[in-house]
Amino acid sequence: MRAAVIGLGSMGFGMATSLARAGLDVSGFDTREETLARFTAGRAARSIREAVEDADVVVIVVVNADQTEAVLFAQDGIVASARPGTVVLSCATMAPDRARSFAARVTAAGLHYVDAPISGGATRAAQGELTILASGTPAAIERAGPALEAMSAKTYFLGDEAGIGASFKMVNQLLAGVHIAAACEAIVFASKLGLDLAKVHEVITASAGNSWMFENRIPHVLDGDYTPRSAVEIFTKDLGIVSDMSRSANLATPVAASALQMFLMTASMGMAKDDDASVARLYAMLAQTDLPAAGRKPE
Amino acid sequence: MRAAVIGLGSMGFGMATSLARAGLDVSGFDTREETLARFTAGRAARSIREAVEDADVVVIVVVNADQTEAVLFAQDGIVASARPGTVVLSCATMAPDRARSFAARVTAAGLHYVDAPISGGATRAAQGELTILASGTPAAIERAGPALEAMSAKTYFLGDEAGIGASFKMVNQLLAGVHIAAACEAIVFASKLGLDLAKVHEVITASAGNSWMFENRIPHVLDGDYTPRSAVEIFTKDLGIVSDMSRSANLATPVAASALQMFLMTASMGMAKDDDASVARLYAMLAQTDLPAAGRKPE
Repeated sequence: MRAAVIGLGSMGFGMATSLARAGLDVSGFDTREETLARFTAGRAARSIREAVEDADVVVIVVVNADQTEAVLFAQDGIVASARPGTVVLSCATMAPDRARSFAARVTAAGLHYVDAPISGGATRAAQGELTILASGTPAAIERAGPALEAMSAKTYFLGDEAGIGASFKMVNQLLAGVHIAAACEAIVFASKLGLDLAKVHEVITASAGNSWMFENRIPHVLDGDYTPRSAVEIFTKDLGIVSDMSRSANLATPVAASALQMFLMTASMGMAKDDDASVARLYAMLAQTDLPAAGRKPE
Repeated sequence: MRAAVIGLGSMGFGMATSLARAGLDVSGFDTREETLARFTAGRAARSIREAVEDADVVVIVVVNADQTEAVLFAQDGIVASARPGTVVLSCATMAPDRARSFAARVTAAGLHYVDAPISGGATRAAQGELTILASGTPAAIERAGPALEAMSAKTYFLGDEAGIGASFKMVNQLLAGVHIAAACEAIVFASKLGLDLAKVHEVITASAGNSWMFENRIPHVLDGDYTPRSAVEIFTKDLGIVSDMSRSANLATPVAASALQMFLMTASMGMAKDDDASVARLYAMLAQTDLPAAGRKPE
């Protein structure tokens, strides 16, 4: 089976490596020369056309819906270059209506489409242990099977239409974004109360106030390490999509809206590309309280 | 060792039972006749004085700081009735400055004081498996030891001054309240998107968007069962304390503030004494979307 991976960033690079490890014949493409040069798990293609023209499955791992649209529908893009019957896996987080629109256009061109947002981070991508939230026609899902298996520890099959996977991902992102902001708010609240912050992490992770994000992100704050594992701008984007979706459905989501504002303030203070736990640095600045390594200025 | 428990509600009743099971000689007091009549694990006292006059340790399990103050300092209250050297465990959730003030007054009267907020719910109270967030002088903590051991699976010793335990509890409550509101917001968002809500619970609990509260409370929504395990009014109170503490520290806590507003709206719609997952019913009403058993009107 031949797979192409379009986008070799921190997620795509690991996913391509996992596909190759599972025995698939992999070609990869990225617009960044230096990224392409590092890609040795498979064939580094010089163009999208070269990457996808012989592929059975094409995995798109770009940043957002607009980039997905570009690589799909550009002249010499995926739809123009892939053979009929090729299955496209679209992994970027996006609004469900974008996923539905892409699926309709891709299907009309004679290809298959799986709405396949991913969760799990770069380490799990490299290990082939992502969680994939898949939806699509049975024929598309079946063709994508070996690739899904190679890249994920768990693939949920959530329905037979594109957009359902994207919807589940947006529910997850609403919660994840709120939980990061709440974790940062709580740790600065604790700091202002003069508490031992490492002890706060220990006590909360064993208590009803715990979240996956509190447990995962507060160590970044305790280490004063804001090297991006996942950047602030991911959540200005994803909570922005939640905001758009809520507004168009006449649905109030005030807690997510507050969290979005905190990510926007953090981004606007120069920390958009820093780790998303940087929201704690914003709260600490506002509260004029110290966090570990709080002296480090945002770049 | 003789223990008195003041307040035999859903938590205090189980704690008194756990103290008796561990071999302590327990007396209990509650203002509600019918509650007192059900208390057979120890001696049902007719007054605070009768309950505490021979006690080595007095455990206060009332609703808030004002009730704690009343049972401590009323004529014929705990301080007026207990022998010198008795240790008082104060378990209600309250602002740290109230805990510090009570500790100073109790200590000045010749008693010991442990700031000992609890976490874990009625079932774990009855099993003697609470989490206790304790702070107090070494002498107070030592005297309280057998009682703490009898009531908790885990007691954290967080510092040698009252107020520290209360502070940790408030950090937990900030997070717990936000996570309940976010869980309710997310499940109604998912409902509006037409998703299978049981599947949402399954996927999210295995994903980075999970929280202890999402995992625990969303089943109440899926069952349409708003019988109070923990009531909405607990969080209007506790997020209210967070709000007061934040304001007096000049600290912005916008995410907690948004969550508080949702609990207040839920309470104002007649659901103050219903399960705190009722916040989902408020969102569903506002969104004019269906949840399981959404037809049930708030009492």
